[in-house]
Amino acid sequence: MTLSSPTSTGPAPETAETAQVGVLHGAGYVGGECIRLLAAHPHATLHAVTSRTFADQPIGAAHPSLQGQVDHTFAAPSDVNLEALDALLVAAEHGQSMQVVPEILEAGFDGPIVDLSADFRFSDPAIYPEWFDVEHPAPELLDEAVYGLPEWNDQIAGASLVANPGCYATGIALALALPARNDVPFTAHVTALTGASGSGATPSAATHFPDRADNVRPYKVLDHQHTPEILQVLGEHVTLDFVPASGPWTRGIWGTAQIEWSGDVDPDAVTAWYEDAYGEAPCVRCSSDGLPSLQPTVDTPFCDLGWTTDGSVLVVGFALDNLLKGAASQAVQNLNRALGLPEPAGLLPRSVLPTP
Amino acid sequence: MTLSSPTSTGPAPETAETAQVGVLHGAGYVGGECIRLLAAHPHATLHAVTSRTFADQPIGAAHPSLQGQVDHTFAAPSDVNLEALDALLVAAEHGQSMQVVPEILEAGFDGPIVDLSADFRFSDPAIYPEWFDVEHPAPELLDEAVYGLPEWNDQIAGASLVANPGCYATGIALALALPARNDVPFTAHVTALTGASGSGATPSAATHFPDRADNVRPYKVLDHQHTPEILQVLGEHVTLDFVPASGPWTRGIWGTAQIEWSGDVDPDAVTAWYEDAYGEAPCVRCSSDGLPSLQPTVDTPFCDLGWTTDGSVLVVGFALDNLLKGAASQAVQNLNRALGLPEPAGLLPRSVLPTP
Amino acid sequence: MTLSSPTSTGPAPETAETAQVGVLHGAGYVGGECIRLLAAHPHATLHAVTSRTFADQPIGAAHPSLQGQVDHTFAAPSDVNLEALDALLVAAEHGQSMQVVPEILEAGFDGPIVDLSADFRFSDPAIYPEWFDVEHPAPELLDEAVYGLPEWNDQIAGASLVANPGCYATGIALALALPARNDVPFTAHVTALTGASGSGATPSAATHFPDRADNVRPYKVLDHQHTPEILQVLGEHVTLDFVPASGPWTRGIWGTAQIEWSGDVDPDAVTAWYEDAYGEAPCVRCSSDGLPSLQPTVDTPFCDLGWTTDGSVLVVGFALDNLLKGAASQAVQNLNRALGLPEPAGLLPRSVLPTP
Amino acid sequence: MTLSSPTSTGPAPETAETAQVGVLHGAGYVGGECIRLLAAHPHATLHAVTSRTFADQPIGAAHPSLQGQVDHTFAAPSDVNLEALDALLVAAEHGQSMQVVPEILEAGFDGPIVDLSADFRFSDPAIYPEWFDVEHPAPELLDEAVYGLPEWNDQIAGASLVANPGCYATGIALALALPARNDVPFTAHVTALTGASGSGATPSAATHFPDRADNVRPYKVLDHQHTPEILQVLGEHVTLDFVPASGPWTRGIWGTAQIEWSGDVDPDAVTAWYEDAYGEAPCVRCSSDGLPSLQPTVDTPFCDLGWTTDGSVLVVGFALDNLLKGAASQAVQNLNRALGLPEPAGLLPRSVLPTP
Repeated sequence: MTLSSPTSTGPAPETAETAQVGVLHGAGYVGGECIRLLAAHPHATLHAVTSRTFADQPIGAAHPSLQGQVDHTFAAPSDVNLEALDALLVAAEHGQSMQVVPEILEAGFDGPIVDLSADFRFSDPAIYPEWFDVEHPAPELLDEAVYGLPEWNDQIAGASLVANPGCYATGIALALALPARNDVPFTAHVTALTGASGSGATPSAATHFPDRADNVRPYKVLDHQHTPEILQVLGEHVTLDFVPASGPWTRGIWGTAQIEWSGDVDPDAVTAWYEDAYGEAPCVRCSSDGLPSLQPTVDTPFCDLGWTTDGSVLVVGFALDNLLKGAASQAVQNLNRALGLPEPAGLLPRSVLPTP
Repeated sequence: MTLSSPTSTGPAPETAETAQVGVLHGAGYVGGECIRLLAAHPHATLHAVTSRTFADQPIGAAHPSLQGQVDHTFAAPSDVNLEALDALLVAAEHGQSMQVVPEILEAGFDGPIVDLSADFRFSDPAIYPEWFDVEHPAPELLDEAVYGLPEWNDQIAGASLVANPGCYATGIALALALPARNDVPFTAHVTALTGASGSGATPSAATHFPDRADNVRPYKVLDHQHTPEILQVLGEHVTLDFVPASGPWTRGIWGTAQIEWSGDVDPDAVTAWYEDAYGEAPCVRCSSDGLPSLQPTVDTPFCDLGWTTDGSVLVVGFALDNLLKGAASQAVQNLNRALGLPEPAGLLPRSVLPTP
Repeated sequence: MTLSSPTSTGPAPETAETAQVGVLHGAGYVGGECIRLLAAHPHATLHAVTSRTFADQPIGAAHPSLQGQVDHTFAAPSDVNLEALDALLVAAEHGQSMQVVPEILEAGFDGPIVDLSADFRFSDPAIYPEWFDVEHPAPELLDEAVYGLPEWNDQIAGASLVANPGCYATGIALALALPARNDVPFTAHVTALTGASGSGATPSAATHFPDRADNVRPYKVLDHQHTPEILQVLGEHVTLDFVPASGPWTRGIWGTAQIEWSGDVDPDAVTAWYEDAYGEAPCVRCSSDGLPSLQPTVDTPFCDLGWTTDGSVLVVGFALDNLLKGAASQAVQNLNRALGLPEPAGLLPRSVLPTP
Repeated sequence: MTLSSPTSTGPAPETAETAQVGVLHGAGYVGGECIRLLAAHPHATLHAVTSRTFADQPIGAAHPSLQGQVDHTFAAPSDVNLEALDALLVAAEHGQSMQVVPEILEAGFDGPIVDLSADFRFSDPAIYPEWFDVEHPAPELLDEAVYGLPEWNDQIAGASLVANPGCYATGIALALALPARNDVPFTAHVTALTGASGSGATPSAATHFPDRADNVRPYKVLDHQHTPEILQVLGEHVTLDFVPASGPWTRGIWGTAQIEWSGDVDPDAVTAWYEDAYGEAPCVRCSSDGLPSLQPTVDTPFCDLGWTTDGSVLVVGFALDNLLKGAASQAVQNLNRALGLPEPAGLLPRSVLPTP
């Protein structure tokens, strides 16, 4: 992918009818957010949700807060009638989607598929054995798949397969895309913390309450699999030193990028970079007042960005909800783009939607 | 108020037009939730929001997460044009509403007012000097005001002044209304914990992080001002021993009521009480499987209820979001009722709304 | 066990030498606290700690905060030389101790053993199949074992086998022992919340951070295995209705007991009950000012008690650290008693220790 | 101050008698920790604690957890008999100590004073108007005061006035002192988060629970007053870009330093730097296995350090309890040094104390 100019809210909807959407593997945290967003979507209807574990049980069995809000029952994956669907969100684990999506395409499904795993994010198949310890079974699809960072990719409208970005990758790429556009090599020193929902719904040592609460735990230091994903977006002239860490909260990613720039940094120029690029982007909020806090982004579809400089170092902060802008709401953004609906439909109140 | 049969989702909307709604004193946590709900309401338009402190500033100045979601600016209270409004939500502090609401009525405002303070909850004016240390300046309005517990009051439709219940009172009254309907005297031993948002947006000793986190702190033991409010709903044949406590979270109330019943408790009869009463209530979720947890109710408009018995004691659990079913979403329920809109409009996805 | 008068801090130490103490199964949270307390004990030396999982690894491998504070290495259970030990703390899981302790006794170990599991708490062997789903393999030891609630049992000094009480049981029994001493039947309605460390160091659904944080989850309502333990202390004239719940913190139990008393409750008499009973108890703090908060007890060896009444209902609150007064520090209290050391040695600064 | 070789645990105590120590302004969080540590100190006696607010009240009035552990009553500052004291810990706010300490010295007090504020940390008086907005009233004392970073200053033994370092400064200086010793200019990009206890015991917007929980909030970005303090330790050849942030916990600082090194980084050489320097330091724990987590340092007197490199960037992580190694336990380390006691006396169990 090459950085294009960031686009805004997309074209007006082509049709007033609602799209019938299915969510595959909808029992995890990301799946639950997809269900919640689609249930309230003005131009989409949640048609079916699958889960092997919860097949034939109500949605509330996996997502108690959705009881009384959604009437559906989980279907077994084999019971979904693809012909009734206009689009699919696939919330399978990494490594599963690369099996599932080719089968769906072979079955003749022709609506857009937004895949939330890492399985179609990389154009280079060699990344998979190197970073994910697996040979990709359908490398020909990697050319076809479109990387779904909607602020920076204008190929999403009409795409048949969209690879939804990773949560850290979304925040870091949105923060660094502007300096990267200058084509001047630089190093970005990033430290970022993520919430426990990023580890999924299955208990593990990383999410054991007595060890997670009141703690910060670094992991995969200088070795996180989002690094190649981010560099694929930004270009190889960027060096990324990335320290990820677990934070003691459930939702949200907060991080800082310290950029050593060759030559002086002009604060006004930096502000112009960001405001020009994201001024019309409905799901990015910018502030030249300083770095963002985490909390205002939680339960919202926004990535918040802010920056400051002392003239030599440029510090950019980013914050987002890992389950929303880092996963489910970005998938709905991509779904809207792919279907020709207003980009923030189902994510923001109508009153702030752009007029078509 | 006398317990009527709980009603369900209200009549169909009389009109397809959207109501113009104002939020007075909208800078606090409850006000923020009112704004958020109204911004997404399918049959209402957020027309104006007032704040003395934040007058002429954008909504995001008080509510950072709403930046980008709501375009409004806070108005000074004196700058609101009441004639442009069809309805009002008043989120003033206790003691302020009793000053503000009479002025609004004197100015000729004739749409429904939902007041979220305690100032119009009591039919007996003597409660105010006893429990709130203030003489009520407009006691004649106490007769006019309708207590807005929508599951138990069928006088809300068409009311001009609705007193929105307290947060604890909502949970405890919904939990105990069924045993209370039998007109058999009983004692309910209630222990309930509330989140820090219940103390409002102004820092205080009760919300100081080092003292609130990892702590439970009882307060106003056997002396909470919601006790007379609850007994006004349930009747004086109920004895309520209420221990409220501060819990280490931001949103939500969780509690248990242990009821010593004269004679044996028939589990099936109890289940029938609750399911008959709340089966059609859109914002109450019942479970005969056991007591509810807190988390599934947070960020939802539901009060969850569950019960269990060993044949002699009846234990009823309740959980709700203090800012939503305990305040703002219940206010919207009342607004909907008063305006003749579907009761859960703006609170639940259309797909689960009852068919008109 | 029959309620004796609560005793205070025990006799003066018989000897200035330090006791050599072993901790069996020391890799869990309770084991870690035992290690920490013994390492700082003025009259005891931590001689050996066992763990099958961590055998031959340093203590810090299981307890990172103890790295640099304790020099020991975990030993395999079979490698401990019992002859070198004067006393044992056994921190095995329920069901393990009933296998391990008889073997130790058969091997001729004659120092005091404090067992922290439930395996020797009940004098009636029939409790084990009913509540723990296991036949006790050594029922004859149940007569020999002494229940280690030091404030209410004067048989601990010189005991060879002490059964350390459960965490909830400690708080509830200390709170209700005074009303129970009157031999008047009453019902106590108890709601209590516990921290995630009570579920142990192994991840599980109950301790999964996204589900535990910002949540309260009731469990084993009216069916907790501490109920028969508490009634064994208090007597069968007490009826206990107990609702336990999981709270969103790591350490500590907080609860309320609402007691319906036959006849009026005299506040001064109640205060006298508690102050007379616990005035000299070094690890119970009483307050007639109201119910206790949780936080002041965390990381301390105290159970805090407070009470209030409106003349008819008596409300008693209790709070304690489940890993300390609910487990490890109480075990050290019992160890001290059994060895003839000052009861709070190793738990409180010397300056507040009672003069021998 | 110039970096000397880090020293270890200090000389053996000169006397078996215990020092009489006073804590001035002991009602805050740091004061509470000083009290707790001194109460358990084997070679010191807590003689007096002052507080204007809590004068004549028991210690437990300000520090509920210390009730039952400490028998003292707060004294008014004017009621302290300095002649009875061998040493003082001053836990006053920044700006207060520069008034109080000169008065104490004028009164002829000749024992060591460890001041925990910033008021004597800088040798250059010009720092005070620039960073603290105050002219220093006793600049002559700045020459006399010794900067109390015990791992890097061998002037503490016998000092009369020790300036205890800041909490961030302790962690960052310990992390960066090794690269700084090479006298090669480098830039360190630091992001660090601190707990709410760092803001003190008075409620404020920064510690309001609903805004602090589940949040990260950056503040004083590239403008924190610990920056000149750190550079005074490291030397002006180091450039420090420091982003501090508020984390959602009560105790502890966790941070990363990313260092751009001129030339390649040899991992083994780095490990040797740290292990050689801190191998004998009782309150620094090093790991070449990776960056430290926060939790193992909380409630301990340690600063944990770890590092990793990919050959070009060097990442050093640090973690410490802001109230202990960042304040009170470091003050006790300094007190021990000044008095000639073993450095970790009162901080670590005897069993791991170095043999004199």
